[in-house]
Amino acid sequence: MMKAYIKKDKSPGFSLVEKPIPDQLGSHEVLIKVLNLSLCGTDVHIYEWDKWAQNRIKPPLTIGHEFSGRVVKVGSEVSRVNIGDIVSSETHVVCGKCDFCRSGQSHICKDTKIIGVDIDGAFAEYIKMPEDNLFVDKSGVNPKYLSVLEPLGNAVHTALHFSPVLKTVAVIGCGPIGLMAVDVLKAVGAKKIIAIETNETRINLAKQLGADVVIDAMNEDVVKRVLEETNHEGVDLICEFSGNENALSRSLDYIKNGGNISLLGIFKENVNLDVNKVIFKGLNIYGVTGRKMYESWQQIASLLASKKLHLDKVVTHQLDFSQMNEAFKIMESKSCGKVVISIKE
Amino acid sequence: MMKAYIKKDKSPGFSLVEKPIPDQLGSHEVLIKVLNLSLCGTDVHIYEWDKWAQNRIKPPLTIGHEFSGRVVKVGSEVSRVNIGDIVSSETHVVCGKCDFCRSGQSHICKDTKIIGVDIDGAFAEYIKMPEDNLFVDKSGVNPKYLSVLEPLGNAVHTALHFSPVLKTVAVIGCGPIGLMAVDVLKAVGAKKIIAIETNETRINLAKQLGADVVIDAMNEDVVKRVLEETNHEGVDLICEFSGNENALSRSLDYIKNGGNISLLGIFKENVNLDVNKVIFKGLNIYGVTGRKMYESWQQIASLLASKKLHLDKVVTHQLDFSQMNEAFKIMESKSCGKVVISIKE
Amino acid sequence: MMKAYIKKDKSPGFSLVEKPIPDQLGSHEVLIKVLNLSLCGTDVHIYEWDKWAQNRIKPPLTIGHEFSGRVVKVGSEVSRVNIGDIVSSETHVVCGKCDFCRSGQSHICKDTKIIGVDIDGAFAEYIKMPEDNLFVDKSGVNPKYLSVLEPLGNAVHTALHFSPVLKTVAVIGCGPIGLMAVDVLKAVGAKKIIAIETNETRINLAKQLGADVVIDAMNEDVVKRVLEETNHEGVDLICEFSGNENALSRSLDYIKNGGNISLLGIFKENVNLDVNKVIFKGLNIYGVTGRKMYESWQQIASLLASKKLHLDKVVTHQLDFSQMNEAFKIMESKSCGKVVISIKE
Amino acid sequence: MMKAYIKKDKSPGFSLVEKPIPDQLGSHEVLIKVLNLSLCGTDVHIYEWDKWAQNRIKPPLTIGHEFSGRVVKVGSEVSRVNIGDIVSSETHVVCGKCDFCRSGQSHICKDTKIIGVDIDGAFAEYIKMPEDNLFVDKSGVNPKYLSVLEPLGNAVHTALHFSPVLKTVAVIGCGPIGLMAVDVLKAVGAKKIIAIETNETRINLAKQLGADVVIDAMNEDVVKRVLEETNHEGVDLICEFSGNENALSRSLDYIKNGGNISLLGIFKENVNLDVNKVIFKGLNIYGVTGRKMYESWQQIASLLASKKLHLDKVVTHQLDFSQMNEAFKIMESKSCGKVVISIKE
Repeated sequence: MMKAYIKKDKSPGFSLVEKPIPDQLGSHEVLIKVLNLSLCGTDVHIYEWDKWAQNRIKPPLTIGHEFSGRVVKVGSEVSRVNIGDIVSSETHVVCGKCDFCRSGQSHICKDTKIIGVDIDGAFAEYIKMPEDNLFVDKSGVNPKYLSVLEPLGNAVHTALHFSPVLKTVAVIGCGPIGLMAVDVLKAVGAKKIIAIETNETRINLAKQLGADVVIDAMNEDVVKRVLEETNHEGVDLICEFSGNENALSRSLDYIKNGGNISLLGIFKENVNLDVNKVIFKGLNIYGVTGRKMYESWQQIASLLASKKLHLDKVVTHQLDFSQMNEAFKIMESKSCGKVVISIKE
Repeated sequence: MMKAYIKKDKSPGFSLVEKPIPDQLGSHEVLIKVLNLSLCGTDVHIYEWDKWAQNRIKPPLTIGHEFSGRVVKVGSEVSRVNIGDIVSSETHVVCGKCDFCRSGQSHICKDTKIIGVDIDGAFAEYIKMPEDNLFVDKSGVNPKYLSVLEPLGNAVHTALHFSPVLKTVAVIGCGPIGLMAVDVLKAVGAKKIIAIETNETRINLAKQLGADVVIDAMNEDVVKRVLEETNHEGVDLICEFSGNENALSRSLDYIKNGGNISLLGIFKENVNLDVNKVIFKGLNIYGVTGRKMYESWQQIASLLASKKLHLDKVVTHQLDFSQMNEAFKIMESKSCGKVVISIKE
Repeated sequence: MMKAYIKKDKSPGFSLVEKPIPDQLGSHEVLIKVLNLSLCGTDVHIYEWDKWAQNRIKPPLTIGHEFSGRVVKVGSEVSRVNIGDIVSSETHVVCGKCDFCRSGQSHICKDTKIIGVDIDGAFAEYIKMPEDNLFVDKSGVNPKYLSVLEPLGNAVHTALHFSPVLKTVAVIGCGPIGLMAVDVLKAVGAKKIIAIETNETRINLAKQLGADVVIDAMNEDVVKRVLEETNHEGVDLICEFSGNENALSRSLDYIKNGGNISLLGIFKENVNLDVNKVIFKGLNIYGVTGRKMYESWQQIASLLASKKLHLDKVVTHQLDFSQMNEAFKIMESKSCGKVVISIKE
Repeated sequence: MMKAYIKKDKSPGFSLVEKPIPDQLGSHEVLIKVLNLSLCGTDVHIYEWDKWAQNRIKPPLTIGHEFSGRVVKVGSEVSRVNIGDIVSSETHVVCGKCDFCRSGQSHICKDTKIIGVDIDGAFAEYIKMPEDNLFVDKSGVNPKYLSVLEPLGNAVHTALHFSPVLKTVAVIGCGPIGLMAVDVLKAVGAKKIIAIETNETRINLAKQLGADVVIDAMNEDVVKRVLEETNHEGVDLICEFSGNENALSRSLDYIKNGGNISLLGIFKENVNLDVNKVIFKGLNIYGVTGRKMYESWQQIASLLASKKLHLDKVVTHQLDFSQMNEAFKIMESKSCGKVVISIKE
């Protein structure tokens, strides 16, 4: 038996329960002892039981998807990982058979199942995963950072889909993924990084991570500031993490002709958009789903190997497995970077 | 002196006037005797003096931008064209100096002037153009089609920005540019072309031009039909020419994950869009401005040289210079392809 | 027991033997009753036991890799195909674990095994394959053509890696793959296809498949002819299937600046090349290995579904399983397209 | 009258002469007072009067192409620069009319004239240039570095054509352009830079500029070392500046499958190449001509604006206009980075 945080029924909150360890493994599956996990905005939606959660989640379900751990058991044909390996994990379990999966585009697989959302997740002492999803770290990074590689992969996917090299980039929203995007953009030679955020803690973190300019969207005229900071030319690339309608709308006023927009932040409602600006400016827009599998993970490996990141600044809190409620409160306050929970082995 | 159709003052309609031939040429400018011209939706906006026209047009102004003609005089340093050449013309007069112009992206030049919109246009007996804008036909196509190469360039730009090769493509809106897009897509090996239109004449023209399926958006459930026609996989590419909010919104329901959308049709108002579909489906959206200068024109030259097009089906009406009002009425009826006006030499 | 053509020992020729049906299946493996097979130049090398074959082949080995057949047995976890399915097959068995396999680039997998070369092949009554490799036809094409889809995939990969749309393309070498490349290029709107070949039968086949120009490299000055046919501009794209040093060298003289070269034909020796032409002309060269897995196969599916190909012209001979030696003689004569061998069910 | 270094006749060496200032300006031409110039390998070829020079150069000719200076006179229609501007300059004078020039590919213009090679050059007190070619620095970099922006543009073009972001890159040859490529690659987040060089001074400079590994090709087994340094995976990208046949050949043994090669260094003779490695490894090769006009210059502007470069380490010598012979001797010794010559104003 193992401890696990589950969504027990169709209402807010989580429950800490005991349930069986999922040790029936398919030929290519792996059992992992969870050592670190981290909280994502998606977990907060499920915790709060908002409209999205009500439509998507079918209790009872073990929640959580960002984790790292130790391989303790492997299926009969597993060969990519070995018992004892410390692993992080891709959280999208894909079908492997659709046209997308068969042409290097598993991130848009027609039949993706997300752990902690569609199938049992990671906020538990053990989790079962397909071997393909596992990432064995070779960089020697402090293991406490391994649970944040999945959202780091979102940041990598968003920041690198359109080349940011020698470009001026606006990062809208400096929650944990936005902060990691700043870190990545700095590492790959963006010309100038302009971060836009409202929370003071996160404004400071963005500065510490190397954003050249951080605009306080609550107290400043964002369009005016961005134009001033770009010699009135605007930015080349926008990485949108806020899911905020106004933020997206005004970005069309400070992006250059021919500019690129990567959208990761989910919007609560439909967006009222001046699409003609997209046309007259000749813009390119890309919707970011998950991580390119596994190109984004290979980029993560390069970033870790070359010591280009500052995950110590991104992970602001480390708590114990028993402190899940405190962790959610910190997340809801938004005065944090990434919140990591560690489980003693 | 020459005859010209002008917008005389800030009100609907046009005036046929006599005005001086613009024969003061800069060193790289060319004077052209206009032989054919064609009508564009933009001309209708100016004719009807709608909100867009009221904001953009500063009378008095010679209207019209789609034309072909004969070179009759050249500036002191002109070397790309010769007196006597029959030419068609790019209608965007660009600055040549901004970062876009200097990196092969003149179509999004920061300081574009459009003939017939920002500066004097082509519905006149003579027009002055920079030599760079001129296209000398070498294919021997019937000269009456040369005035439609500019909108053909829009079709080419929209249809070919994302590769349509062996892809299933939806063409939304079969006005003249949409019809030409069908023609182009057929020529370059689209797997299946699904055209969507409401006007019966245009539905028939789309079929004649080789659309594999034409859906009558007035009388059919578009999403359902597209999915049926694509084995419930959806389309790879959408070429949007309608500027219709509903048409764009529902296209997000029948496009494949990872699909591409090229937007050319201008919208009357902001669009209420479910941007999350762009994100969850991993879509790519591109705003089409004008023609790639001059890559789109080189593609036009290839299409003409290899006789791949059917402009005889696209140009449904040919009128005389005196019949401008009749021409506009035909355009407004929408029961037409392209309307060409010829001027006797 | 089944009949199979094998390379018995380290000497020229093949042997027809009886050997056990390979019916021990892994969880994701499939047993196929072979119905059609076709001969490839590689098979000829193995038959003739040339230097390459001596280095690569380890007898005893069932030879052959191009085939189609019927699924007769499936492993415990197979779900992509069903017993009774008629299938063609990718012939590269890849590791699935290297960085290439994990980022949509299995065609350059570090640990590829090719059937009929590295592991037992298809010139037998039965063959065992991983389910991932199988292609289930949905187009209803005549089954006798299904064994040529693998080399068709080479043609697709070579012809479409660089966009041939509205481009002038030289196809060097019109063996079966070159012929199929002509067919593919015609289908996707190449501006002009210039085929270069020495064998009269193949020259005629290239013409029948729609090559706009076919140059007889034995009797004509190739560089001069290509330049004449391209208005002295040269070609945009070269698809090289000949593996002939002179052919490659002179292609550098008739390719445009900025042109693209896809290399598929293998060379017998090192090539003496004027690399400075690559530099001064700003060329792009791409080495074609196998088929993009499985993008090339998806393109094949599109080509078949839209009935764009003329495989009836490509397959010039159909023989019986007992006529293997005749088949090789036809291949060696080069006066043929593709030679297919059918096995009665 | 002005002083100028010219190739007087068809023999080695240069002559310092007095000749008229080229002050007859076309409408878009500019006269520049030269302030700094720098020496290129091409100048050495002309100085030494080797075979290439004998074929290409038509004396009498003012030599030199890398320069910066002050605008002192402008043609009647010049608007991009003003009298007094400090400028660096693109050295390829292109036709502006061919298909390449008209689609953003002027670097491969069919009718390029290079200053100091085809037309009078920059090793003089004054030079006349088209306004399009000029680069007005806005970064405030020390003016003595402005004459090296043209070869920096070669480095930028070579290093960035294929994305080096998070990739392992081999830089073959650390002459001035190779050194600048190291500097650029470091700035844009290459994962690991492996420089290969034989000259001790340049080995040290490469280390100072941030190469992670520098291999002494005279004393080490290059293939073995590269493989060791890349965990036996090989490099993703090769930037070839040496023009050395052995260096290129062996690079095919340490490049990854699917890897990219940018070729800038010119070869003295044809190269004997194992083209099959290009095919079996699925490689991409690109020939680098000049600088992308003017994308490479826009990238230079970004690099300078964001202070990412270390030109102080690249420019190892600064001499006076009278010391041209000393400058050439330093260049010939190869124990240098870039040699700059300054002219007092």
